Amino acid sequence: MSRKMNFYAGPSTLPIEVLEELKNNIADYHGEGYSIVEASHRGKVYDQLHNETVDLLKELLGIPEGYSILFLGGGATLQFSMVPMNMLSTGKTADYVNSGAWGGKAVKDAKKIGKVNVLFDGKDSNYSRLPAALEVKPSADSAYVHITSNETIGGLQWKEWPSTGDTPLVADMSSDILSRPVPVEKFAMIYAGAQKNLGPAGATIVIIRDDVWKNAPSDLTAYLSYKTHAEKNSLYNTPPVFSIWGINLVLKWIKKHGGAEAMAERAAKKSQLLYNAIEESDGFYRCPVDPHNRSTMNVVFRLPSEELEAKFIKEAEARGMLGLKGHRDIGGCRASIYNSVPPKDVEALVEFMKSFAKQQA
Amino acid sequence: MSRKMNFYAGPSTLPIEVLEELKNNIADYHGEGYSIVEASHRGKVYDQLHNETVDLLKELLGIPEGYSILFLGGGATLQFSMVPMNMLSTGKTADYVNSGAWGGKAVKDAKKIGKVNVLFDGKDSNYSRLPAALEVKPSADSAYVHITSNETIGGLQWKEWPSTGDTPLVADMSSDILSRPVPVEKFAMIYAGAQKNLGPAGATIVIIRDDVWKNAPSDLTAYLSYKTHAEKNSLYNTPPVFSIWGINLVLKWIKKHGGAEAMAERAAKKSQLLYNAIEESDGFYRCPVDPHNRSTMNVVFRLPSEELEAKFIKEAEARGMLGLKGHRDIGGCRASIYNSVPPKDVEALVEFMKSFAKQQA
Repeated sequence: MSRKMNFYAGPSTLPIEVLEELKNNIADYHGEGYSIVEASHRGKVYDQLHNETVDLLKELLGIPEGYSILFLGGGATLQFSMVPMNMLSTGKTADYVNSGAWGGKAVKDAKKIGKVNVLFDGKDSNYSRLPAALEVKPSADSAYVHITSNETIGGLQWKEWPSTGDTPLVADMSSDILSRPVPVEKFAMIYAGAQKNLGPAGATIVIIRDDVWKNAPSDLTAYLSYKTHAEKNSLYNTPPVFSIWGINLVLKWIKKHGGAEAMAERAAKKSQLLYNAIEESDGFYRCPVDPHNRSTMNVVFRLPSEELEAKFIKEAEARGMLGLKGHRDIGGCRASIYNSVPPKDVEALVEFMKSFAKQQA
Repeated sequence: MSRKMNFYAGPSTLPIEVLEELKNNIADYHGEGYSIVEASHRGKVYDQLHNETVDLLKELLGIPEGYSILFLGGGATLQFSMVPMNMLSTGKTADYVNSGAWGGKAVKDAKKIGKVNVLFDGKDSNYSRLPAALEVKPSADSAYVHITSNETIGGLQWKEWPSTGDTPLVADMSSDILSRPVPVEKFAMIYAGAQKNLGPAGATIVIIRDDVWKNAPSDLTAYLSYKTHAEKNSLYNTPPVFSIWGINLVLKWIKKHGGAEAMAERAAKKSQLLYNAIEESDGFYRCPVDPHNRSTMNVVFRLPSEELEAKFIKEAEARGMLGLKGHRDIGGCRASIYNSVPPKDVEALVEFMKSFAKQQA
């Protein structure tokens, strides 16, 4: 099979080993006589898969006691509603860091639910930098502080975490979860759509401290209350089975390859190759992001003109490198290099960047 | 491959042809060099699949102009929130038929959003019958009338549709969509979780008249507004790709086998085999549901004692017949025989029912 090199911002590529497992077991799940997507979510076979996936997340992320792990539908986008619905009570203020496209969407939804204070607005710097961790100070009546650990479109990533004391810290980690160790105990809640670092689209992971879901308002409808899902181990209704199976396999792959620390090393190496190629290009490539906040997952860069950018993207595609076009809102180029993107694909891209720049000289 | 016979209430079994397609293309989608679950949801390959699936639904359900078809996450359960959030404005009343477990859950959520009138409560008849279509009369200030076309747990199914005039009619068709032709033009909105008649869990189909989503309140958060999804052809955020692929394949299978009319014939034949076996058992098997409302999808029945029921379920399992235990809330036995359940599996179950009854005599 001739594999394309996938630099799309998401869904991400998956490890070959995971694809092979899916292929070998999709029609008959380990000889059970049915596919896992045909299995009852109340049966033993699915139950084992479900709980093993929870346990793998606990182990790989080092999630302490006192947290629940949920699998929900609707993507991180639904969490933009559920976080303020569950955590922002009347009389309190939700503090948000608006660090770009995703942080901005979270702000917009929270404002429909309650009082919002934007602690930091990246707009002033054209979303090229994040605040320092120490700059993040909760409001006096803060319900929680919300950050986006990695901005997929802008290519920004938090390197140190704010300390918010007793104020719950909430993070959307959709595009960099398990790309590095995270001190989960600093967070009241972490959420992440599966389709970048965890597996196939369809499930969203929620890691939530038990006091948070236990205090959810009782007037919420069933699906929109974290309590509903936490009390039923995410089996209140049918979960997105295939996506959870895929997550299970990706987590095993991460574990086999050394866990979060090894993924951080892998991400640092891959992203450094690209940032070095940019820095060493004598200004042919430029990264607009403050060097302190450059993402190890989404490397954004510009070329001297939009014409050259279009040519670059087209020629890369002809070499089997897909998804290098920047997001339509900001233009330019972007290489998304999630955990599953092989280092050799990044090396091939760097070679191409060098030869492309040379060819234009 | 030795296939089990799957009578679970959901997720349902899938046609062998669909499982084979999934297996053959899960690692490399029709030679594209990547899996469809690795494809960008903004790319041509996924786009073609997405729109083809919409078109197949339009064709097979006979959906007229002026309706939008959405793929959402969160199951039918999330729709219990979204329907009243989008359609129940202040000063209006939402009319619900409480026909059992699912209708009841829809009522419970709607009450948290606004004023609800229960037009018919099946509780009085222990959820053994549905109202006649003519009995369903909207309130004077009705925002909409909500029904559950098939109660998965109770085994009840509407055979004729209420006429609600100018009042929007909304139906949860999770457990019988595409098991028969439906006059879509009578409905303002139809929704259905995929995992019973349409494909693998993870996506919910929403068929919504355009005036309904266009009139959604503007204070809703992004994911919870139908407008968000209708305006972006369900691509506002990453859709549940695998589930939509599975739906696509199941729809093609339905089309190949004659469409909704042929499915209705198939469902009538399969369910009749079971209901006949019950009626001809001299009272050994009993179906508690009013004969006018017996479901062609979920056949519920009792045996003379709970001990015999347990024995029946155990012996059936030993013969490879899974999922015959009734829902824990009502006990007894249930055979769920969705579109994809092969007639020969139902025939095998009927043979077993006969021999089991004889053996106890």
